[in-house]
Amino acid sequence: MSEYKTFNADDAIAFADEHSELFGEHSKLSAEELADGDLNLVFRVENDKGTSVIVKQALPYARFVGESWPLTTDRARLEAEVLKMHRRFCPEHTVEVRYFDPVACAILMEDLDDYRILRAELNDGKKFNHLAPQMASYMANTLFYTSDFVLSSENKKAEVARFLNPELCLISEDLFFTDPYCNHERNTIEPSILEKAKTLWHDDALKAEVAALKASFLSKPQALLHGDLHSGSVFINSDNCKVIDAEFGFFGPIGFDVGTLLGNLLLNYLASPGLHDAEDSASQQAYLLEQAEQLWLQFSETFTELMNRETQDPALENNLYQQRFLQQVFSDAAGYAGCELIRRTVGLAHVADLDSISDAALRTQCQRNALKLGRELIMQRSELNNINQLLNLVRYQQAD
Amino acid sequence: MSEYKTFNADDAIAFADEHSELFGEHSKLSAEELADGDLNLVFRVENDKGTSVIVKQALPYARFVGESWPLTTDRARLEAEVLKMHRRFCPEHTVEVRYFDPVACAILMEDLDDYRILRAELNDGKKFNHLAPQMASYMANTLFYTSDFVLSSENKKAEVARFLNPELCLISEDLFFTDPYCNHERNTIEPSILEKAKTLWHDDALKAEVAALKASFLSKPQALLHGDLHSGSVFINSDNCKVIDAEFGFFGPIGFDVGTLLGNLLLNYLASPGLHDAEDSASQQAYLLEQAEQLWLQFSETFTELMNRETQDPALENNLYQQRFLQQVFSDAAGYAGCELIRRTVGLAHVADLDSISDAALRTQCQRNALKLGRELIMQRSELNNINQLLNLVRYQQAD
Repeated sequence: MSEYKTFNADDAIAFADEHSELFGEHSKLSAEELADGDLNLVFRVENDKGTSVIVKQALPYARFVGESWPLTTDRARLEAEVLKMHRRFCPEHTVEVRYFDPVACAILMEDLDDYRILRAELNDGKKFNHLAPQMASYMANTLFYTSDFVLSSENKKAEVARFLNPELCLISEDLFFTDPYCNHERNTIEPSILEKAKTLWHDDALKAEVAALKASFLSKPQALLHGDLHSGSVFINSDNCKVIDAEFGFFGPIGFDVGTLLGNLLLNYLASPGLHDAEDSASQQAYLLEQAEQLWLQFSETFTELMNRETQDPALENNLYQQRFLQQVFSDAAGYAGCELIRRTVGLAHVADLDSISDAALRTQCQRNALKLGRELIMQRSELNNINQLLNLVRYQQAD
Repeated sequence: MSEYKTFNADDAIAFADEHSELFGEHSKLSAEELADGDLNLVFRVENDKGTSVIVKQALPYARFVGESWPLTTDRARLEAEVLKMHRRFCPEHTVEVRYFDPVACAILMEDLDDYRILRAELNDGKKFNHLAPQMASYMANTLFYTSDFVLSSENKKAEVARFLNPELCLISEDLFFTDPYCNHERNTIEPSILEKAKTLWHDDALKAEVAALKASFLSKPQALLHGDLHSGSVFINSDNCKVIDAEFGFFGPIGFDVGTLLGNLLLNYLASPGLHDAEDSASQQAYLLEQAEQLWLQFSETFTELMNRETQDPALENNLYQQRFLQQVFSDAAGYAGCELIRRTVGLAHVADLDSISDAALRTQCQRNALKLGRELIMQRSELNNINQLLNLVRYQQAD
């Protein structure tokens, strides 16, 4: 293929046939277009024996809530490269990229047809005890092995440049740190919480903290992040988790990945009373707090072990430094989790956890709780010493 | 010229003649090789009317204290590009680059023949009241206008990649943050302070702080630094200062430039009793503390004004954030100044301020003072609220 062209089902079949060792009989392949966001085409291509692969092609534009703007198809390269790098360090929990075509901007990847999206499972009240340990392992390994603890400074600088990803970073910068804190047309705010949302626009103490979190997002290239680690980027089944959709990956603050995932567990916690009856909600909330606790504890345990054992730079071997580094990751994570709560409630991209609550009064109450907890996490992030203090904030916060 | 070749005087004349509008009569030009470090050839090329320019060529190796290793000549491009960028934002105090040849790795630049090197002037006990305000203006303007306050994130990312400078950064990383804190063969330690130096190698509390400063040097691309802003990189005369030698430039923490220059004023302060008689030393020390105070006060005043007036990112306009940002630059600067004191005393590259003290006992005492103050600045940097607290540390520190 010599130039970019949007795939139809037959193109997807041809692409899969050409680049997948398992196939080879074009005539026996079928393709089904899967629903996705509005940034990509996704096809499942299957042969007559039921073996399937996914073909994902980046579209040259993005569409969010009706708005459409041009967006680099180079993000397909970034997604493929981030996933390959993460798979090097955590093959168990990173989707396998089998082939990437830079002209078609298309990725052939493993089909996770026996998995479901984590967000949908959580909204259905499903519980998986392997969620926290596996995602902790994914984050600790992918983030540690792409950090200054391991990469030589020369190699790290080259990798930072290879993963600059300015266009997709700009989307995150705007949606996380700018739009929710001003009267921006991209925001989606339900009328019932408009007054609460407006208080954010004039909350200078909060905006000072959000500015600091944004500055770190811009200028703290600690490790190669997934960059979009919400519960829609995690596939799960009864045994395993796998991470997909890494097109927002770049070198940024480690706490951003940790905080995004943590924030998504908390969003589901806050939405739970609107999604389930009282008993199921209590049980789901207990499960989610346990997972949030284990996510941090096991992440920090593994990251600490790796720092102790695998640090390559002698100047960074100091134990006290390593403890403080991790404490600062925790504080960053609390802040970014808070940003995720707020932007998912009043920003452009909402989550089904909250939006699917059918009782309007309950939905409003959950949204207000999300704004309140989000603010507390951001404001108190430097004083929180451990995950239990953070979870006590979650347990005892009451919306006013 | 189609390939790199080390210049002789005649090559320098031809280069200057070809690229300088003022010249044009090769036969009437003369060249003189100037002493420099062991990384570059530097020629002054002059015509018969006394008009002169400097030709600086990067050598394909570096030589420090007898040791020699290969070093990219791409640093000539980096030096030219950093100086051009800094001159855009502070033309008064940045040497003018008139032409850069990427094949010859040679720069044609303004001759500062009516200036002298700041370090030599300070060691001679000279005083210039314009030093602090002018250098404060240089740092505030060059660092602010290359920061996230002004550059769009897309532009900033591209500039970070353009100025990666891995080879020269590695030299700084080793010499500042690694070598002085271990028994490294590159260190140069006078026998009389060997015991004191050894305490650094086992000072885990100090090494934890130095690790944090190194991590920021590696992964905090706040602005395009000069990267080597010691008093040998500043030319001065009775009216003006000009900054030269920017080959270590890269995107790093703003406090590194500020701290390096501050550290060099403090080194001269500490050396002063060994360089002058008691009366002259007291007067020179008073002058240096005044300059150190003004350097920070005027830097922070100008930087604050610029943040208020010229910030392009609405999320970073918050006043409280800006105050905290500057406070963190101050704390970083104190820490990097401390590193400069230590590495110039026991590391590879010493300074004439200390080394030229002829009285051995006095020299030892000054070196011990430098180690002591360096450690205090690093350890206390986060508790120092303002420049007076920092200068009180300087005034009242006593070596044990």
